[in-house]
Formats: sequence, C-alpha cells, structure tokens
Amino acid sequence: MKLGRLNHVGVAVPSMHDAIAYYREVMGASLITAPFDMPEQGVKVAFVNTPGEAGTAGTQIELIEPLGETSPIAGFIAKNPAGGQHHLCYEVADIEAARAWFTAQGKRILGPTRIGAHGTPIFFLHPKDMLGQLTEIMETPRGDH
Amino acid sequence: MKLGRLNHVGVAVPSMHDAIAYYREVMGASLITAPFDMPEQGVKVAFVNTPGEAGTAGTQIELIEPLGETSPIAGFIAKNPAGGQHHLCYEVADIEAARAWFTAQGKRILGPTRIGAHGTPIFFLHPKDMLGQLTEIMETPRGDH
Repeated sequence: MKLGRLNHVGVAVPSMHDAIAYYREVMGASLITAPFDMPEQGVKVAFVNTPGEAGTAGTQIELIEPLGETSPIAGFIAKNPAGGQHHLCYEVADIEAARAWFTAQGKRILGPTRIGAHGTPIFFLHPKDMLGQLTEIMETPRGDH
Repeated sequence: MKLGRLNHVGVAVPSMHDAIAYYREVMGASLITAPFDMPEQGVKVAFVNTPGEAGTAGTQIELIEPLGETSPIAGFIAKNPAGGQHHLCYEVADIEAARAWFTAQGKRILGPTRIGAHGTPIFFLHPKDMLGQLTEIMETPRGDH
C-alpha cells in the first residue's frame, strides 16, 4: 500500500453550533459545510476546509457531534467534555485492496465497509493496532474532494 | 485572522523506531525525514510526508518521542502507551500578529514564541481554550515546507 492523502482529521465536539462559531471567529475559517446528520453512524457532521499549497484543497477538519445518547462518540465526549481529536482519515485508490492489505497485516477492522460522509466507501481500524490512532480509510472521491 | 494551512498533526509515540517502521510498512509512507533531537522542547522529532492534491505537499504527520523522563510529553505517553494524536499545527503569515489576535481573544498562550521543528517561530495555545485541541501556530516557512 502507498500512503494516500490525509483527507481529514476528525474532531469530536460537544456542540456543532459552538464548534462552527469557534472555527469562524477564533480560527478564521471561511469555508464550512452545512452540518448534516448521519444517523447510521450516530453523528452530526460538518467539514471545515483548510487551504492546501498553491490553491489546492487542504486536509479538512471533520467536526462530529454526538447524535443522541447512544452515539458511538458519546463516551469520547464524556471523557473529553471540551472536545478533542478523534480520528485520522487517509485516502486510498481502492477500498477493497486496502481492506485486504490491513487484514493480511492482522489489523482489526471495525465493522463492514460502508459509505462515509464524503459518499465513498470507508472503514475504521482499531486504534490499538494503529499506533494509538483510530484510523479511517476512505476511497478517494472521483473528480472532487 | 484567516485560517491557514494545516501544516502537521502531531502524534506522540513511545518509540520513534517503531513509529517509523509502522508508517513505512503498514501505512506505506515513502518520505520520512531523519529523526532529530529538540532538547529545548524535550522531544525527538521526525516528519512523515503525505501527498497533497495535484502533486503538492500535504499535511505532515509529526512524530514526537519523549526525550528523557522530564519530557513535556512523558505524561501523555504514560496515559496513552500506544501513542496518540497530540496537537494540530496551523500556519500563519505573521506570528506576532497571530499572537496579538489570540491574546485579544483571551486565549491562553503557553510560553514564549520560539523556533519550532521547521525552523520558523511557533507558539502553543491551551487546549481548554481551543475546542479541546492543543493548538500550535507556526509562521509559514518562506519558499519551502
């Protein structure tokens, strides 16, 4: 496997409203997507766009807020009430090849491959097998980030 | 202030040797800088380069290993023995203007402005004031990342 683009850094937040205000007013972000619910993942999601080099799109910050008390990130927010870095997401050209690669390396994959917030297939890997980092692998969107 | 490029994600690791092997062998990184000591920060540092869009340089992963038992990240590794995401670093055009901006917003700045791992001035902001994220602000290197 070849290391792909760092698509986004997932940041868990207690309040999407406050997090968007923080990125606009404190960090000076101008491009933040409208929040939307992903009920199957138990999160509300919005992306903060950061600039890359030479006018390209940089790595995004993915804001995720728990959607209800049974959200998979409810426990993370209970432990980190101010919010915190939650996961790193790398792109791959072929999600099935990546899944086979990590499986062959004995890495624990968390659940089935599913459609992520960018509309392409994703899966997550266990942080204890990934240098302490909850790692998302995502197939590169075709034509657009 | 205008949101700048996400220069790097800081990842604290218990072993630089093992972390470099992980990024090469599991994640498929080909460009990892030689590790060097930053005794004044109490860390050993190496950068993993990730690709950006259209052949540009993407956000780096900054691997940091504690340099001695009094390292400021020794406690983080004690709590996260496998390693973990430690900080986010954003670029700004003018470090003094950025320092004045965050000071005016009542954000706690951790220590003086100093020279960071990329050879440009940096400072850190308190995670409790920054959406739970230890945040590094770094002046954009001139001509090169």
